[in-house]
Amino acid sequence: MTRVPLERKVLNENDRLAADLRQGFLQHGTRCVNLISSPGSGKTMLLERTLASFERGRRVAVLTGDIQTDNDAQRLARYGFPVRQITTGGACHLDARMVVNALAEWQPDAIDLLLIENVGNLVCPSSYDLGEEARVVVLSVTEGEDKPLKYPATFHRADLVVLSKVDLLPYVPFRMDLAREYIRRVQPDAEILEVSCTTGDGLDAWRKWVDTSC
Amino acid sequence: MTRVPLERKVLNENDRLAADLRQGFLQHGTRCVNLISSPGSGKTMLLERTLASFERGRRVAVLTGDIQTDNDAQRLARYGFPVRQITTGGACHLDARMVVNALAEWQPDAIDLLLIENVGNLVCPSSYDLGEEARVVVLSVTEGEDKPLKYPATFHRADLVVLSKVDLLPYVPFRMDLAREYIRRVQPDAEILEVSCTTGDGLDAWRKWVDTSC
Repeated sequence: MTRVPLERKVLNENDRLAADLRQGFLQHGTRCVNLISSPGSGKTMLLERTLASFERGRRVAVLTGDIQTDNDAQRLARYGFPVRQITTGGACHLDARMVVNALAEWQPDAIDLLLIENVGNLVCPSSYDLGEEARVVVLSVTEGEDKPLKYPATFHRADLVVLSKVDLLPYVPFRMDLAREYIRRVQPDAEILEVSCTTGDGLDAWRKWVDTSC
Repeated sequence: MTRVPLERKVLNENDRLAADLRQGFLQHGTRCVNLISSPGSGKTMLLERTLASFERGRRVAVLTGDIQTDNDAQRLARYGFPVRQITTGGACHLDARMVVNALAEWQPDAIDLLLIENVGNLVCPSSYDLGEEARVVVLSVTEGEDKPLKYPATFHRADLVVLSKVDLLPYVPFRMDLAREYIRRVQPDAEILEVSCTTGDGLDAWRKWVDTSC
């Protein structure tokens, strides 16, 4: 019971830092997108396909969060854009302080698009505002269509839900109609895109979403 | 920084309750198994197949944790064994207190095997001892073979790793040899089983693991 006030204090402090980040992003014309999902839903692959599709001069940067390893940063750095790994060393989510620290060595006005890949966790990252303009929840069709109802706080704050790995639909018992209904029930305003990074299906629509909202 | 001592206090309190639970389980001859995984890796399906395979008189009970919904308890109750849903209402893991409360209305000496399905989260549940005799981490092959390295604390405490959904191996870029190597690197003593609840492959070995260790 003693935990609640402290959690609130931590979140209040996070909200304050996130508000500063958001103001900085606005001031410098940086669009910040925060990607949240379960482990292994395909966030890194989606970012790889996205970076591969960008023209070389594009002012895009990536922060990628993991508890351990810098595997994802290594994968993402191959595309020639600035990438920084945030290794949380145990923490189950990114927080605004980690983003502030990671951005410290970059020129704040040199980034038009900042993509943040959160730690793979469908619960905890949703409580931590990172100052993002848009929040994307990625849900792989292998995870089952019931997840929006089971993790409502996460889906409730989504601007976009990317249903990933749709190439696997023939092999898994995933009902797309129910998935869409459950997402709408929790967050009626979220856009929904169906994407496969393997076949490329839906990637144009995703790119368009990233571009139009930049 | 103020968070650390409080977290320690919460965990100490949990460890105390878990020790009581463990002692009670020992005293009553109850084997308790704690299943941890990402959302959608197939814990509930594995439990469904397990319950379906048990003879009717078997003294088995199930606790299933979710942030919201009692979908899983409904699915699991169909097999005729006692099932109780623990809805955490936001908490990202089960803790020992929740297990104590959930068990309060059951006869402690009437259960030989207690299966606990944790909240779908590959991070936070690993810090909370539930008094279990054995801990199982379920990793779906759709999640990628790098997860043991990215979530080492969780795999480090596993007695058994179930690699699930192996029927999907032809369609996903999952390297089984690497997965096994990474699990061994983090937890050399863990048993590893490859299972598909769709085809039934590996279910006999899983049942044998559950039975022998009972």
